[in-house]
Amino acid sequence: MKARIEGSAATGKPSDFDDAFRARLRDLLIWRRDVRRFRRDPLPDGALERLIELACLAPSVGLSQPWRFVIVDSPAHRSAIRKNFESCNADALAAQSQQRAAAYARLKLAGLDDAPCHLAVFADRATAQGHGLGRRTMPEMIEYSAVTAIHTIWLAARAEGIGMGWVSILEPAAVAGILDVPANWTFIGYLCLGFPQGEDDIPDLERAGWEQRQPAPSSVVIRR
Amino acid sequence: MKARIEGSAATGKPSDFDDAFRARLRDLLIWRRDVRRFRRDPLPDGALERLIELACLAPSVGLSQPWRFVIVDSPAHRSAIRKNFESCNADALAAQSQQRAAAYARLKLAGLDDAPCHLAVFADRATAQGHGLGRRTMPEMIEYSAVTAIHTIWLAARAEGIGMGWVSILEPAAVAGILDVPANWTFIGYLCLGFPQGEDDIPDLERAGWEQRQPAPSSVVIRR
Repeated sequence: MKARIEGSAATGKPSDFDDAFRARLRDLLIWRRDVRRFRRDPLPDGALERLIELACLAPSVGLSQPWRFVIVDSPAHRSAIRKNFESCNADALAAQSQQRAAAYARLKLAGLDDAPCHLAVFADRATAQGHGLGRRTMPEMIEYSAVTAIHTIWLAARAEGIGMGWVSILEPAAVAGILDVPANWTFIGYLCLGFPQGEDDIPDLERAGWEQRQPAPSSVVIRR
Repeated sequence: MKARIEGSAATGKPSDFDDAFRARLRDLLIWRRDVRRFRRDPLPDGALERLIELACLAPSVGLSQPWRFVIVDSPAHRSAIRKNFESCNADALAAQSQQRAAAYARLKLAGLDDAPCHLAVFADRATAQGHGLGRRTMPEMIEYSAVTAIHTIWLAARAEGIGMGWVSILEPAAVAGILDVPANWTFIGYLCLGFPQGEDDIPDLERAGWEQRQPAPSSVVIRR
């Protein structure tokens, strides 16, 4: 490996992390939640901009940085998004089995009414940035890059005590139309951000009895 | 918000994070790299299992936990993967413009030869876990969930001084065939893990002059 050839954008020297940091990072992962119950007070000034700036440190295929953030502030746009959610959620309820419909109806699946901050995230497959590197056989790497940006926001927000909820019960084409984004942008997620009404280390869906987490080994296969 | 109704899996109380942790988390994001130059010494015993366990704390749509990890240990499987990479990379080189071909040829785009640990990640669209919640209008949420698991591994690995590289210059169907996974599993990424030969806070592709990072505001739109 060649020696470092650039000045540092951070502390200026390679960064080691200690046991204490690793323990807190683990806590962060444990206490990150998909938040649907928000307090209505606004985020601190500059918080959203700071989170988006951190998101831009996320990995991206070929350094394409294909994430596109749409801050949704207008009541008209928010209302149209909420209507689309309600319609999709009603369809999802209607498609539930008889056994699960009542449980589904009891779930709170979005914090659109109370969250002070709404952020829609798209991925731009048409971007020239990155010169196509790494996405010839897997064009979906563009979407995956935007997902890592969202996950970065999620973790960084939680570290500030800010909760995030990812709403996926929406029609991507409808969201793109409501927000009037370029045709090449793929809708990835609609994020609600705000201070949570409470904190927990157990997912809401587990507490509500909808589903239980499985132990890690059940998802591992070894090819020897 | 209802009071907590479950015992805690972590420290047992809501977790606050301080300025010092947030600064180190920012350092972690800044110093995470897509590593392609690895030392050959193995990961410490238990490191991979620990990383996979942390990955399972990632968010997943409807608590579906659709990530599937294939630890690729056998030389035969690794060799077949490397051949597929070489073929895809040769195609990608041939598709470069005359202006960029030489620069592309100079890039090191995978650490498959030296990385001691190879991990293929898939997403299982057929999983019943989560009972379909949140993925009716966006079935791709299954793949996105697996991406957040990969990103979790990436960050947790870096916090242990372990580097990760995500190889996407592969044919998904070929990888699935080589590793003989169920037909429903979508290939997400092939990960090389090991100790990096060096550390940097500037992406390799930027240092190599392939692409430059853009400032965050260029990816933001506001709907007022």
